[in-house]
Amino acid sequence: MLLLKPDLPKPSPSHVERAKLELHRRVGGSKVLDAAESCARFASDESEAEGELPDVVVLAETTQDILTTLAVARETEVPVTPRAGGTGRTGGAVPVTGGIVLALTGMNQIVEIDPAEGLAVVQPGVVLGDFHAAVEAEGMFYPPDPNSLSGCCLGGNVAENAGGPRAFKYGVTRDYVLGVEAFLIGGQHIHCGRRTKKGVTGYDVTSLLVGSEGTLAVLGDITLRLVPKPPHLMTLMVLLSDLDVAAKLVARATSSGLIPRCIEILDSGTLEAMRQAGNPINAGAQAMLLIDVDGDEAQCEAQAERLAGLSDDLGALELLVAQDASQRDRLWNARREMSPAVRRMAKNKLSEDVVVPRQAMGELLRRVARTSERSGIRTVTYGHAGDGNLHVNFLWNEPEELPQVDQAIEQLFHDVIDLRGTLSGEHGIGVLKAPYLHLEQSAELIRLQQDLKRVFDPAGLLNPGKIFPSQGHGAC
Amino acid sequence: MLLLKPDLPKPSPSHVERAKLELHRRVGGSKVLDAAESCARFASDESEAEGELPDVVVLAETTQDILTTLAVARETEVPVTPRAGGTGRTGGAVPVTGGIVLALTGMNQIVEIDPAEGLAVVQPGVVLGDFHAAVEAEGMFYPPDPNSLSGCCLGGNVAENAGGPRAFKYGVTRDYVLGVEAFLIGGQHIHCGRRTKKGVTGYDVTSLLVGSEGTLAVLGDITLRLVPKPPHLMTLMVLLSDLDVAAKLVARATSSGLIPRCIEILDSGTLEAMRQAGNPINAGAQAMLLIDVDGDEAQCEAQAERLAGLSDDLGALELLVAQDASQRDRLWNARREMSPAVRRMAKNKLSEDVVVPRQAMGELLRRVARTSERSGIRTVTYGHAGDGNLHVNFLWNEPEELPQVDQAIEQLFHDVIDLRGTLSGEHGIGVLKAPYLHLEQSAELIRLQQDLKRVFDPAGLLNPGKIFPSQGHGAC
Repeated sequence: MLLLKPDLPKPSPSHVERAKLELHRRVGGSKVLDAAESCARFASDESEAEGELPDVVVLAETTQDILTTLAVARETEVPVTPRAGGTGRTGGAVPVTGGIVLALTGMNQIVEIDPAEGLAVVQPGVVLGDFHAAVEAEGMFYPPDPNSLSGCCLGGNVAENAGGPRAFKYGVTRDYVLGVEAFLIGGQHIHCGRRTKKGVTGYDVTSLLVGSEGTLAVLGDITLRLVPKPPHLMTLMVLLSDLDVAAKLVARATSSGLIPRCIEILDSGTLEAMRQAGNPINAGAQAMLLIDVDGDEAQCEAQAERLAGLSDDLGALELLVAQDASQRDRLWNARREMSPAVRRMAKNKLSEDVVVPRQAMGELLRRVARTSERSGIRTVTYGHAGDGNLHVNFLWNEPEELPQVDQAIEQLFHDVIDLRGTLSGEHGIGVLKAPYLHLEQSAELIRLQQDLKRVFDPAGLLNPGKIFPSQGHGAC
Repeated sequence: MLLLKPDLPKPSPSHVERAKLELHRRVGGSKVLDAAESCARFASDESEAEGELPDVVVLAETTQDILTTLAVARETEVPVTPRAGGTGRTGGAVPVTGGIVLALTGMNQIVEIDPAEGLAVVQPGVVLGDFHAAVEAEGMFYPPDPNSLSGCCLGGNVAENAGGPRAFKYGVTRDYVLGVEAFLIGGQHIHCGRRTKKGVTGYDVTSLLVGSEGTLAVLGDITLRLVPKPPHLMTLMVLLSDLDVAAKLVARATSSGLIPRCIEILDSGTLEAMRQAGNPINAGAQAMLLIDVDGDEAQCEAQAERLAGLSDDLGALELLVAQDASQRDRLWNARREMSPAVRRMAKNKLSEDVVVPRQAMGELLRRVARTSERSGIRTVTYGHAGDGNLHVNFLWNEPEELPQVDQAIEQLFHDVIDLRGTLSGEHGIGVLKAPYLHLEQSAELIRLQQDLKRVFDPAGLLNPGKIFPSQGHGAC
């Protein structure tokens, strides 16, 4: 575990005691945890960031629980970290200075699904996978599909603006959020956005809240847009002898107007991890593309045929077309189990989520390989090739290697910015990437965002230490 | 012309004189207009709002012209109203208290079109129609298509978050803006957003600026996402004996998973206006649907067949399928010329752009008919049925009818909110709808937005009088 600890003071013990008392009194015993052993699991998320043990955890069940928790935080000046599924990858839900954790997993009702209107209303603690199932049972489709879908919650998805493979064709969470109920630390309880597909009344506060990583408001009910469920789905697996050729295939496919549901790319290190996990993959293959196409049957077949043609033209080693659900599941399960498979390759793993323009993907992968050679730190890269969104994993065994790892990561970020990319495609900045924000954004833009933050949270009590670098970085 | 004049002070004459002098000195003679006859055309836009005559107009040609104009506005405390094509429908570009108008039509370069990456960079004064042509020449497609496309500019499209018929399938302007260069009244020159398809670094300041109607920043270069141009297009015209049946057809089409490029609805009053303009339309028809489908040839035919089947089932009076460009143009030109045709039906016309949930469209149309009967004010309604986005036109001849017109409009807004809709789908709030903002948004939400406005523009110098109601409304 790593902790890039921001330079923030801890709340005073007497304030913390008052907050605990007030929460016990006003929210109620069973919903308030303050024993260290019950609070421990709220100190971290699925990232490498380890936070401080929270002093108290509120398991919110109602709107009033949220309002009361924020009121107590405000009155006692104890920071509050909102949290849903806790599956974030950059420490967004990690309490960096302890204080209050406001857990929203108990607010897990699907309030409404309206297939005719194409919308749903959900509480923030609804698990994404459950929502997918409920929506699809009504013939509708909610595209965002981060890998953590069996555990992540919609409140966290909105807070982080989650993506996933299907973002290539369908866009990310922000593209589906029509409106949100938001609770501000000042006590305001606002409804922003709309229930209609279009709407331009006032500023787009909804979009500002999406991706704000719990630093501006705590989310309540979320109104989501749904689309009709595509009737057919087909999966292609293409094995190639070279990563560059894989990138070329992606470029040719997308520029010829093909819009598959998703195009995943896996590099040679990833294939090696999959082989080690027992998947018999052609030994000559240095890259894999995993492509889903959807639509009606004829559309799927037409797309698959064109992709097969492009693969042939580029000398693919192997092409597999999965038509039924079990074949598809087999291919995708191998992809989904990759993260743990990669983790088994070394004692330590750090995964960085970056994006470059699609055409620069080959160049970034070459630079990553050079950095890996130079630093001696092994890398394994896979990701959403259609969007140029790559997850670069750094693997190492010994603590002495940490400085090289740090250098390699910093080099990656420099390369990404140099290629006109962005530091995060779907995992957010959280606490782990905050020190690098200034590489991408100017001091003026960072200052503007900090000023916006102050409108929502003048005392800096809501999810402190996230997104913005602490003193001495960026805003200088 | 109407002016719902906000309660705002005019800038002091001595400050205005200083601003003029400074602009002449620092921006340069030929780019600065201050004669009343040259400034007159900058007092209004395509809405019914008439502003004050601007004291001085700057015809910006460079980034430096924008920076200097904002600096002079700041130093002299004279308000500045940014303006691009001047085709807005709610007075967003109208200088309500005079002052400086900053015209951006001279900044009309398409900086870059990158088909492989699927992006373009444009200056704010590029005319939308010119951009469509340039992009399509490269095999790409930029979907937003407000009716004013031959004169409106991309800067204004972004400021108002413009839509158009194709929004049904493709979304609105915000869905295509990846990043913007923004000039703040405080002198900051920021680049927000990205060049990649995905990106979650920091707050979504870009989305906040889109649709902010020139009240937060002046826009410079805009980075837009492009999609591949759909190879085929087919237009269907369906005539029906009843508006309710038309609404039913839309509901059945969309809930069966059909996603046409656009579905326009025209009511009986609109058809009458078209007949008067010389279009021979079946006398029994009380409603028309104009539907574009796109994709490859097979997809177009499959969609057209399903729509034809639905039309038959619902007893359509007539169905026309236009396959070639000239047939399509004939159908669409009639739709595009409708606004002037409707205008000829009475001395005065006010068009209101509202949205309701798709399923509530029939009910809204019934309520509009009742209001029209009760008030004696004739209405004509058409719009983007797939999105539930309707343009309700109020027609009258005599000034004495104005109070009834006002009442009818207010009734419309009440009905829209009652049906869980929104006051504006694509025209913005501007100055004309500002007095009604509180019908849709709570005082807390309005206050929050005004606080956000102050972060960008503490002295209220940038496009004052827009979006927010003046004293006594909403924020009370």
